[in-house]
Amino acid sequence: MTLPLHDLSTLAVPVRFPAHSLEEVVATLIQEEAQGNLAPLSIVHDEVDLARFEKETNFLSKYPYLVVLGTGGSSLGAKSLYELTKPNFLPATQQLFFVENVDPVTLEGLLKDLPPQETGYLAISKSGTTAETMAQFLCVLKHLRSTVGASSIRERCLVITQPTDSPLKRLATRLALKTLDHPTAIGGRFSVFSCVGLVPALLIGVDVKEVRAGARAALSRFIQEKEASAVAQSAAAFAAYSTTGYNAHVTMPYCDKLTTFTLWWRQLWAESLGKQGLGTLPVPAIGTTDQHSQLQLFLEGPKDKFYTLLFTNAATKGPDFSAEDLDADSSLSYLEGRTIGDLIDAEQRATLQCLRNKKLPVRVLSFDALTPFVMGALMIEAMLETILAAKLMKIDPFSQDAVEEGKILTRTYLNEMA
Amino acid sequence: MTLPLHDLSTLAVPVRFPAHSLEEVVATLIQEEAQGNLAPLSIVHDEVDLARFEKETNFLSKYPYLVVLGTGGSSLGAKSLYELTKPNFLPATQQLFFVENVDPVTLEGLLKDLPPQETGYLAISKSGTTAETMAQFLCVLKHLRSTVGASSIRERCLVITQPTDSPLKRLATRLALKTLDHPTAIGGRFSVFSCVGLVPALLIGVDVKEVRAGARAALSRFIQEKEASAVAQSAAAFAAYSTTGYNAHVTMPYCDKLTTFTLWWRQLWAESLGKQGLGTLPVPAIGTTDQHSQLQLFLEGPKDKFYTLLFTNAATKGPDFSAEDLDADSSLSYLEGRTIGDLIDAEQRATLQCLRNKKLPVRVLSFDALTPFVMGALMIEAMLETILAAKLMKIDPFSQDAVEEGKILTRTYLNEMA
Repeated sequence: MTLPLHDLSTLAVPVRFPAHSLEEVVATLIQEEAQGNLAPLSIVHDEVDLARFEKETNFLSKYPYLVVLGTGGSSLGAKSLYELTKPNFLPATQQLFFVENVDPVTLEGLLKDLPPQETGYLAISKSGTTAETMAQFLCVLKHLRSTVGASSIRERCLVITQPTDSPLKRLATRLALKTLDHPTAIGGRFSVFSCVGLVPALLIGVDVKEVRAGARAALSRFIQEKEASAVAQSAAAFAAYSTTGYNAHVTMPYCDKLTTFTLWWRQLWAESLGKQGLGTLPVPAIGTTDQHSQLQLFLEGPKDKFYTLLFTNAATKGPDFSAEDLDADSSLSYLEGRTIGDLIDAEQRATLQCLRNKKLPVRVLSFDALTPFVMGALMIEAMLETILAAKLMKIDPFSQDAVEEGKILTRTYLNEMA
Repeated sequence: MTLPLHDLSTLAVPVRFPAHSLEEVVATLIQEEAQGNLAPLSIVHDEVDLARFEKETNFLSKYPYLVVLGTGGSSLGAKSLYELTKPNFLPATQQLFFVENVDPVTLEGLLKDLPPQETGYLAISKSGTTAETMAQFLCVLKHLRSTVGASSIRERCLVITQPTDSPLKRLATRLALKTLDHPTAIGGRFSVFSCVGLVPALLIGVDVKEVRAGARAALSRFIQEKEASAVAQSAAAFAAYSTTGYNAHVTMPYCDKLTTFTLWWRQLWAESLGKQGLGTLPVPAIGTTDQHSQLQLFLEGPKDKFYTLLFTNAATKGPDFSAEDLDADSSLSYLEGRTIGDLIDAEQRATLQCLRNKKLPVRVLSFDALTPFVMGALMIEAMLETILAAKLMKIDPFSQDAVEEGKILTRTYLNEMA
C-alpha cells in the first residue's frame, strides 16, 4: 500500500519559528510517543484489541439498523470511516446512523422510523456526562422499555465511556449493559483509532486493520524523517501563518467520500488550536462542488487563507460519454475520449494553478485511491500536524476549556424553566 | 403565519457607513424591485407559474427516484427545501438525490444503484455550459440508451436552462426533451424562488406556495420598514464589519433541517461579496452539534468573527425521559420534567450568553417552527441582506468572474491528456 504524497513546493513557508524550535518540538513528540505518553498515536500499535472488540460487540451485528448516540469526538471519526463503505444512493442491508444533536424533530423521527426490534444502539461519551448523549440515550431507553420491553434492552445497547464514575457509567451498570472502555488517556477528537472510531466502523464492515496499518505506516515515516518530514514542515508553516495575518485554513479534497473527514479535521484543528486568542479557522470544502460555492471568495476575497488540496488519481476512471452526443456538437469536443474521472483530474489541477497564480499558499496531498489504509494515514498525519502546530504555538492541543461555561448555563436555564 | 423575529441588540453596529448611504441604498433597491429590475426578488409575486410547473413536470412524478444533475446555484436551493420534508432516517416512497460533483466513484454508484426504469432526471444549468452538469448528463444519457433505450429518454428527463443557444439547450432540442426556462435575469445563487429551486421541491411534496408566501411577507416587511428594518440594519453592520478587521460570518441554526440552508447561504454570501479583496468568510455551523466542534475556537480563538444564531421555539417539544432513570441518579435531576426540546432551548440560549459574555457581535433570528413559509422568509431576507451589504461595499453582488480562469484551464488540461 502507498502512503499519500505531499507537495509543499508552493507552501512558501514564512520563516517565523527558529529551525531549532521545530527540531526540538519534533524530537520531544517522538520521545513522548516512544515512551507511550501519547496514547492517541501509540494506540495504532495495539495488536490484540481489534479481535476483542469484534468478539465483544458481535451481538450488535445482527441488527440492520445501528445508531450511534454521541457528538463531536464521539461521532465524527466513525462517521468519516463509514463513508468509505457507505453507498451514495440506495442503502446497503446494514445502515449506520449518527444522532449528534438534540433537535426534537430528529429525535421524534428516530423513535418513529426505526423499528425497535431491528435496531441496535451505541451510546458514546468519554466523560459519561455529555448532556446531549445522556438525553438521547434516556429517550431511547424509555422507548425500548415501551416497545421491546425492559428485559431486552441489554441485547441491543452498547456503551462506550471511560471506566470512571459518571452518570452514563452508573446507568450502564444499573441496567447491566455491555460496555467498552473509552481510553482515559485519549480525548474525544483524538479517539478515532480507539474503540470509539473503530467499533462502529468494524460493525459496518470497514477494514479497520487497514485503517490502523495506514496510520502506523504514516507514523513510521514521520518518525524516520523527523523535522524534514512533510508533516513537520507543514505544521511549521501553518503555525507561522497563524501569527502572520492568515485567518483560515481551507481543506478541499476532490473526493466525495472525504466530506465527513473534513468535518472531523475541522473539530481536530479548531478545538486543538483555538485558544489564547490564537488559532486559524478551519474551512471544509469539496472539489469540484465548492468551486461553484466558495472558490470566488478564495480567489478574489481577502488573501488571508492557506490551502490543503487533496487529490485522487481519478484520471481514466468512471463512466464515459457516447460518441453520438459528442459528434453531434463540436462544443462538447473537450470531452471526447475522456471519462468523468478525467474531468475531475483536470479540474483539481486547474484549481491548484489558479490558487498558485494568485500567490496563495497551497499544500497538495495526493493518493491513488481512497482506501482504509490511506484514510488511516491521512488521519494520523492530521493529528501529528495539529499537535506539532500547537506545540510550536505554545498551546496545549489536548484541552478545550472554553465550552464549560455553556454547559453550566444550560443546566441553570433548564432549572429555571417553568 | 409568523415571520422570523430579529434581535440585533448585541450586534453592536460599528458606525462606518454614513446613515444617508444606507437610506439611499435601501431606497434604490426598493425602487429597482418595484420597477421589476430585481428579478430574483420580484419572481415571488408570480401567481401563475407554479400551476404551469406542476402541469409540465408532472410526467416525472411517477418515478420513485428523482436525480438533480447540477451544482452550486442549480442544486443548493432545491436541496435546502427538500430538507423540510426529507425523513432523517428511513427513506420516504419518493426520494430526491443531488449529484453535484464529478467524482467517478459517485457517478458509478449512481448508474449502478438506481434502477433506470424507476428513475427520473432533472439536468439544471443556467448557462447550459457547466462542464460538470454536461458530463453528468452525458453519462446518464449513454446509460439510459443502453438500459431503457433511446426512445424512452424523453419520458424521464427534464432540462432547466436559459432559453439561449448552448450545448445543453442544443442537446435538449436534438433529443426533443421537455425543458423549462431558467430565467435569464436571475443568477444561479439567487434562483431558489424560480423553477430551479421550486420544481424539484414541488415534485417531492414541499408546499412551494408557502415558500413563496413567506418570501413575499418578508419582502413586504422590508419594503415597509425600509432602512429601519432588521435586514437593512444587519446589512449595514455586516458591511461595516467587513472593513474593520472582521474576517468571518458564522451562521448557526439550532435546527438539523437547516443544514443545507447554511450551505446555500454560504454560496450566496461568498460569491456575492468575495470580490476586490473584500468579503467575509461565511462559516456554516449547526447547534448543538458544532458546540462540540467549532465553539472552542469561536470563544477563545481570534475575536474576528460575527454571528447569526437561528433559534427555534423547541421548548417542551420532542420525547422526554423516564422517571425511573432520573430517580435512580440524582446527577440527572437537571433533566427532570424536561423534554429533548427543552434541552436544545436551554443550550441555544446558553451559547448566546457565552458569545455575549465575550463581547462578540451576535444577531439572533427566531421562529416558532421551521415551516415552508419561514424558510421562504429566511431565504429572501438572506438575499436582501447580501445585496444591501454588497451595495454598501460598492461591490456588484450578481457577478462571479474569478472562477472563469479555472474553467479555461480545465479544458486545456483535458486536451493535453494522452
